[in-house]
Parts: sequence; structure tokens; C-alpha cells
Amino acid sequence: MGASGKVAIDAFGGDNCPTVEIEAAVRAVREGLRVILVGDEARLRPALEKLDARAREAIELHHASGIITMEDTPSKAIRSKRDASMPVCFDLVREGKADAVVSAGNSGMMLACGLFKFRRIRGVDRPAIVTCFPSAREATVLLDMGANVECKPINLAQFAVMGSVFASVEFGRERPTVGVLSNGSEDSKGTELTRVTHRLLRAHPSPRFEYVGYVEGKDVFSGEVDVVVTDGFTGNIVLKTVEGTANAILGFLRDAVAASPMRAKLGAALMRPAFAQFRRRTDPDNYGGAPLLGVDGIAVICHGGASPVAMLNGIRLADRFAREGATPGLRDALLEHDALFAAAKQAEPAPEEER
Amino acid sequence: MGASGKVAIDAFGGDNCPTVEIEAAVRAVREGLRVILVGDEARLRPALEKLDARAREAIELHHASGIITMEDTPSKAIRSKRDASMPVCFDLVREGKADAVVSAGNSGMMLACGLFKFRRIRGVDRPAIVTCFPSAREATVLLDMGANVECKPINLAQFAVMGSVFASVEFGRERPTVGVLSNGSEDSKGTELTRVTHRLLRAHPSPRFEYVGYVEGKDVFSGEVDVVVTDGFTGNIVLKTVEGTANAILGFLRDAVAASPMRAKLGAALMRPAFAQFRRRTDPDNYGGAPLLGVDGIAVICHGGASPVAMLNGIRLADRFAREGATPGLRDALLEHDALFAAAKQAEPAPEEER
Repeated sequence: MGASGKVAIDAFGGDNCPTVEIEAAVRAVREGLRVILVGDEARLRPALEKLDARAREAIELHHASGIITMEDTPSKAIRSKRDASMPVCFDLVREGKADAVVSAGNSGMMLACGLFKFRRIRGVDRPAIVTCFPSAREATVLLDMGANVECKPINLAQFAVMGSVFASVEFGRERPTVGVLSNGSEDSKGTELTRVTHRLLRAHPSPRFEYVGYVEGKDVFSGEVDVVVTDGFTGNIVLKTVEGTANAILGFLRDAVAASPMRAKLGAALMRPAFAQFRRRTDPDNYGGAPLLGVDGIAVICHGGASPVAMLNGIRLADRFAREGATPGLRDALLEHDALFAAAKQAEPAPEEER
Repeated sequence: MGASGKVAIDAFGGDNCPTVEIEAAVRAVREGLRVILVGDEARLRPALEKLDARAREAIELHHASGIITMEDTPSKAIRSKRDASMPVCFDLVREGKADAVVSAGNSGMMLACGLFKFRRIRGVDRPAIVTCFPSAREATVLLDMGANVECKPINLAQFAVMGSVFASVEFGRERPTVGVLSNGSEDSKGTELTRVTHRLLRAHPSPRFEYVGYVEGKDVFSGEVDVVVTDGFTGNIVLKTVEGTANAILGFLRDAVAASPMRAKLGAALMRPAFAQFRRRTDPDNYGGAPLLGVDGIAVICHGGASPVAMLNGIRLADRFAREGATPGLRDALLEHDALFAAAKQAEPAPEEER
């Protein structure tokens, strides 16, 4: 893969495709990023014709006939929809024509494409999807956020390594702190999965991260830990709970302002800049996309309803990862944890004991 | 148990005991509730002497020598600390001298006391701790919030019944809607535990509640479901994530106001009443305490740092439950779901397959 990133954008992934994808591509090339827009040429070409010459020339176009929908079952679609825009993006990377994939499409299909087309990095049992939360210390990294509903200790141990590498590359953490998400900080808390993982991470100090033990739900924002590892079921519930809580609080505030006297409405008007700054701080758009870690290539998953800005950030992230060689870095980091992984595989509960 | 509630208050449970407990007892008797303050007479008597005559006479005092701390291991303490204020509260109910227990102490010990002293309601496998979230529709009930880290389908099925009874008694829901917390709404989502429970609840329509299927983390606030059932591990993580998110958002807002020009500060001042109303709406103090459902008696667990108002709400809840015969109501409701429970026990994974 090239030293300078070229990003293959799935033009037919998001809820508002291809409009959002085209707009994101335009913004990307305007800041000098290199992109290939992948999808039905008959639909993309006319849209590109409307652009100014510079953008039109800068955006490379690659035809792909099909579209992966949210209804597609990854295991089926990976075989039946080989020509769809999403899998074709992965093919371009395999052929060395691109360095990373960005899509706002079916995340299960992104995982399937990562597994079948990029393959897993040697030694990785399950790839994970990473998400970030704004915290007192810039951001906290949470994984897995949904790729693996049922996990084993070996999975969480590898998430810890991959998450710490991500925190280093993305947020420049020297030696990130890592915690296992649990229902309390005492060693006696947690499920068999968390207890075994907790014991393993404590017994095998890492050269890459500092293991701080159990952390709780509130710690995705407390800034007391850089990386939080959990299974994909719990990770998804944390993510959705954060979204729901944020929406509820802002809704309650709106109601409170609407229900209160004129002076409060005036106050709200005067506070607008503060609210705007607050929104910037908490806007998910600032956290480009969710990279798929553990596959041998760079794939970034954007929210289905991602705005052009959110997708642009996903493209920036993919480009940065390509240029900084995140994948080789991940490979090296994983190799440094052989002892931990070997112990984890022995400690691993038999399949029928799985969570 | 008496028709009119008399509440045994553990005077040495909370972080600021017995000051908070005494203040809560005073407020309770002022509104005509009947309470017994349980704890070391040598410490409580002098404090009561300082009260006005009416309060002093209204508050019954019952001596108990020991104190259960957060460090106590329930399984040990239940035998070694028989005379501590918390277990003595349960004894008073067993002896018919009180109708309910309220404590801000060690919740694991509350569960142990409920199990050993009240015993489980016939047919209940595991009691659950309930918590409430303010929602678009007044409130959403979540259980289990921590009593049972590892659950089986029979547990979640019984949580559904107990939670719907709670929603009816506490929020007057005619036929509450119930959902199983999962990582997505499609049937294919979830863990083995949620999938089996989902199938069971769909196959056995309840006379007490309407099962709406899988719900997501955001639905604890969406108001689209009255009762959310989940295992105690996940429930605790939802609870802590909500706390963390709320604190983070208010913190970000404070920073935004502090960092912005004078006009924003003026705006914040003008908005104070709106913020106050917002705080009232979201103040956990409004949600008295977390009742322990499934034991044959009324026990309400308050937050360790509960304020006198929060404890007062816990006492009101306990009194209301006693007067409305919530326990007999629960017993009847459980009996109406024999078929569901029988199916759940058959569907139940063998212990070694447990989550």
C-alpha cells in the first residue's frame, strides 16, 4: 500500500447516498486528500459533471454496479453481491489501487468484507469496531462497539492491545491506560468473561498500555481511562445509552426554556454561542468514523446518517491511518503480546461456556 | 402486615448516617407517615432529643447495636452481624412490628437480608432491583440493575412480570409495555439469553403487560417502552453510563458558559430558573429508591449518598407499597404466568451454558 493514502469511498452506503458521499469527496479533495468514488457510474458521472473543474478532475471515479442495503445478510451478500460498491472498495485496496475504505453502509457487511477480503491480521481472532467519546481528557476509546456480540477473554485481551494502538495513533497517547468495563471496581464484580480477562491483563503487564483494572459505565466520559474494552453487546448498549441520555437531557433543557418566562428565552438567546460551542464539543461528526481494527487493511465505518462533515472526518482518519502505517503498527503491537494471548487462549472458556 | 404502612428505617446505612436518616424520618412523620428509626440508641437518642416534641414523639426508636459497612461481605455478615441495624429492620417486619424496610446501605446485604429474612415469593427464582429513568412518558422502569450479574431466561421472564407490576403500582400504567434490552431491534440481534427470552415472551402473551420485543439503550429515555428488562451486569452499566453522560454534558455546558463572553454569562443567569426546572426534572432524588422485587416483603434501597429528600421519597414509596399491598399483588401476577415460567425453565440453558 502506498505511503500517501488514497481512500476508496463507497458512494452508495449511507442513508442519503450518493449526495453525502459526493459532498464528502469534494471536501476531501479540496484539502488535498486523494479519493476514489466507487459506485454506479451512470448515476455518479452526471453529479460530478456539475462540480467545478478542479473537483471534477481530482475525484477519481470507479464503476460498481450493485448496492449493499441494510437488509442484506452479510454472509449471503459477500458471495451474491461481489460487484456492489462496498466490496469493490475492498477489492481496490487488495489490488493496490487504494489504501483504505470508507463507507456509511451496512456495518455487518463491512465486517464481512474486512474478514473475507482483507483477512485478519495474523494472530487476531476477532476484529473489533472502535468508537470514541469526548471526555475530560479529550477522548475515551471504546471497543468492541458491536462486531462481536459474544466474546471470550482472548478477544477482550486483543481489543486491549488494538485499542491502545488506536489511542496512540489517533490521540497521541504515550502509554494509554486500559480498563475492562464492569459493574463495579472490586475484583469480585463482573461476569466470568470480565473476571478472567481482568486476571489475565493484570498478570501480563504490556509494553504498550497500562492496565488500570475494572472501570464503570461513567468512565467512558470521566477521562480516567483512555481505552475501555468490552464485548460488542455491552459496547452497543453503552453507545445507544449515551445517545439516548444526551438527546433526553437536551430535550429536557429545551422544554425547560420553552416553559419558562421571557427572561429565560432571552437568556437562551444570549447563551447561543455557548450552546454552539457545546454542540461542537459533543458533535459525533468530530469523531469521523469507527475503524475496523484487526483486519489486514484500513476500513472506516461511518454512521448511516453521517453528514458530509462526518464522512470527511472518516476519510481524514482513513488517510492518516494509511500514511502512518497503522496496520503494520498494529501487527507489531500484537506480536509483543504473545504471552498474554497464549495465556488467554488457555484460560478461554470452552465454547459451551461462552457468555 | 398492617394495612397502614409503618416503615423501618436503617439509621446507619448511608454515607452520612445517621444525620440524613434522622432528617428523612423527621420529614416523613411531619407528613403523617409512621416510621421506626433503627440503630444504636446511645447515638440516636441525643439527636432525637434536639427535635421538637411532635417529631420526637412521632419517631419510634428501636435499638440495634451493630452497623453493616460497604466492606461487609453479605454471605458472612448475614450470620456474623445479626444485631446490625439493617438486618434488625427486616426482623421487625417479620415480627409484624413494621411493614417495610428502607436503607441507604450495602445493597448486596439488602439483597441477602431480603433472601434470608423475607424469603423469595413462591415461584420467584431471583429477586431484582428496580430503577427508574425520567422519560418522555414520565418514567421508564429498568430491571435488574445489579442484583443478578448472570441471568437465565427464567430470570428475565420473571423480571418482565415484576417490572410491569411495579410500573402499574408506581406509575398507574394500565397494561405496561415491556421490552428486552438488546444491541438492535432485529430478532437476529442479541445474545443467547436475550434471544431465548425474546422468543418466550412473544410466544406467551401476558394478561399484565404488552411485550414489544427488543429495545435499545436509547429507549430508557425514549418513552416508547414502560419496562426494560436485562441482566444485572448490563443494567448496572446502563445506569452508570446514564450518570456519566449526564455529568459530562452538564460539565461541557458549564465549560462552554465559562469560556464564552459576558453576554453568555448574563444569559446563563437569566436561564437559571429554566436550569432549576431541568434539574428538578432529572434529579434522582425524585425517584425515591430502588425496590427489591421478588422477596416476600417490602425493601427499598436508597443510594449511599442519598439526600434526606431522596430517602423521604424512598420512605413514601415503601409506605405506598405497603398500603397498596404490592407484595400480594406481585404474588398474584406471578401466578398468572405459570405457562411462561414453565416454558422458560425448559428453555433455560444448563448451568454450564449460562452467560
